[in-house]
Amino acid sequence: MLLSIVYIIGITAEAMTGALSAGRQNMDWFGVMLIASVTAIGGGSVRDILLGNYPLTWVEHPKYLLIVCVAGLITTWLAKWVVKFNGIFIRLDALGLAAFSIIGCQVGLNMGLHYGVCIVAAIATGVFGGLLRDLICRQTPLVLHHELYASVSLVIACLYLILQHFAISGNVSVIISLVTGYLIRMVAVRAKWRLPVFRLLENAK
Amino acid sequence: MLLSIVYIIGITAEAMTGALSAGRQNMDWFGVMLIASVTAIGGGSVRDILLGNYPLTWVEHPKYLLIVCVAGLITTWLAKWVVKFNGIFIRLDALGLAAFSIIGCQVGLNMGLHYGVCIVAAIATGVFGGLLRDLICRQTPLVLHHELYASVSLVIACLYLILQHFAISGNVSVIISLVTGYLIRMVAVRAKWRLPVFRLLENAK
Amino acid sequence: MLLSIVYIIGITAEAMTGALSAGRQNMDWFGVMLIASVTAIGGGSVRDILLGNYPLTWVEHPKYLLIVCVAGLITTWLAKWVVKFNGIFIRLDALGLAAFSIIGCQVGLNMGLHYGVCIVAAIATGVFGGLLRDLICRQTPLVLHHELYASVSLVIACLYLILQHFAISGNVSVIISLVTGYLIRMVAVRAKWRLPVFRLLENAK
Repeated sequence: MLLSIVYIIGITAEAMTGALSAGRQNMDWFGVMLIASVTAIGGGSVRDILLGNYPLTWVEHPKYLLIVCVAGLITTWLAKWVVKFNGIFIRLDALGLAAFSIIGCQVGLNMGLHYGVCIVAAIATGVFGGLLRDLICRQTPLVLHHELYASVSLVIACLYLILQHFAISGNVSVIISLVTGYLIRMVAVRAKWRLPVFRLLENAK
Repeated sequence: MLLSIVYIIGITAEAMTGALSAGRQNMDWFGVMLIASVTAIGGGSVRDILLGNYPLTWVEHPKYLLIVCVAGLITTWLAKWVVKFNGIFIRLDALGLAAFSIIGCQVGLNMGLHYGVCIVAAIATGVFGGLLRDLICRQTPLVLHHELYASVSLVIACLYLILQHFAISGNVSVIISLVTGYLIRMVAVRAKWRLPVFRLLENAK
Repeated sequence: MLLSIVYIIGITAEAMTGALSAGRQNMDWFGVMLIASVTAIGGGSVRDILLGNYPLTWVEHPKYLLIVCVAGLITTWLAKWVVKFNGIFIRLDALGLAAFSIIGCQVGLNMGLHYGVCIVAAIATGVFGGLLRDLICRQTPLVLHHELYASVSLVIACLYLILQHFAISGNVSVIISLVTGYLIRMVAVRAKWRLPVFRLLENAK
């Protein structure tokens, strides 16, 4: 199925960004595999733990875990190339974000949850991987500061819910949401769209 | 019911402290909502995940999540006022801590768990929200250094367990525990009561 | 049973390392107990939450939690001695790591999971306690930088799986895996064996 392929592309791209973060912290191979796994599969795992949706994807399909660990290790050899082709990365990551959001949304729908919770599930899937990566690598979490990321997740989830609500066939909904999400994310990156920032000065504390 | 009202006051107050932390880190609106949610609802979620008590409260009642996100966003506009009325905050937070502890304890009792685990559930509910907030905002966790916080949770839980054990009617137990917890916390803040601190010098390592 | 005794030795040793970390951050008694618990019991809890293996060990057997909290508090009085007998610690910690890995592996086997997931369960049990300790204490996670730790877990898990696969009786498998794991870890510490490190220079970003 289309979504599976895009999912695998997404986790591979995410695993590679995780491996690069691990490299910036001079971690060993185990650290590289751990951060790659957390970045790629952590978002979905957090979602499933929050929703009580067991077994987790990688427990049922350990091959995803294997893909992610291998992608992380390969990144250690290809680091120079990976860094050079940053543009491709951003595209793969945008595709992954869209896929993650749709999958998260669908998991919520399958469990018969409230639409609001489905949207939270979509955002959790898209965002928590990167958040955990930055926490373990002791970086300021990018998703809380950067160009639209969670918001893209939100838009994709809403669009997908509307399409499903009007009983548009599954594959069509997926493709429309995927393409729209990808385009919004790419425009957001190019135009450096950001959400308004809340600044509280320390002396006002 | 009384506890529900106090619970809503508690999560609103916690959401506002979360939003202020996000503002000190110059986070965007999404970051503000995330930190507000984690601070207000994270403690209860950690408790329910540890105990396997599904579905989580906010998955069953998404309105709590809405309240928390709105409270977080409103704080970005009212930040100056919120900071000014710090005294009211500390009071609401004390009330919230007491409510969180009683609710956590009750969840454990409903699941038929050992009294010791009920106390842990109470402390987890009261403490983990603030702990996660400080981790994501990369602050030294306040609850591990500050005036009695977890200990107040502990005292409230024990008191509530004793009252329940002697079959005091639910509402009376709640009110007694709530008032006692609130007073202990407020006295602890005023008198700057602290637990003994364990200092290990780095050169003794 | 042998494994239970080694498990209790392991969580006690881990609790003491947690308490020392808390002391380096000048935490209060509650912080000491929290960090001790997270270090000793956190790995197993993360494993069980990921696998959906409820109830968690310490919820079913609260005495383990008690042991860990008491061990943490005692460490605050005996800190000087604990630091002096560092060598004994490293030995107990190595024994604990081996026990944790075997237990994690066995939990996966009992749930009928894929061998790959059993290995992940073993590593999670051995590694996540220390990882969470370092995150909350805002230290660079040792397990991602240090001498072979996760890898020892991996070797123990593989050895144990092979022994079980060939239907070697439970106790014999446990003893062989325990002794082998202990020896590998001690040699790794002495010889300062490390996994290759992935260094990505910041200017290559």
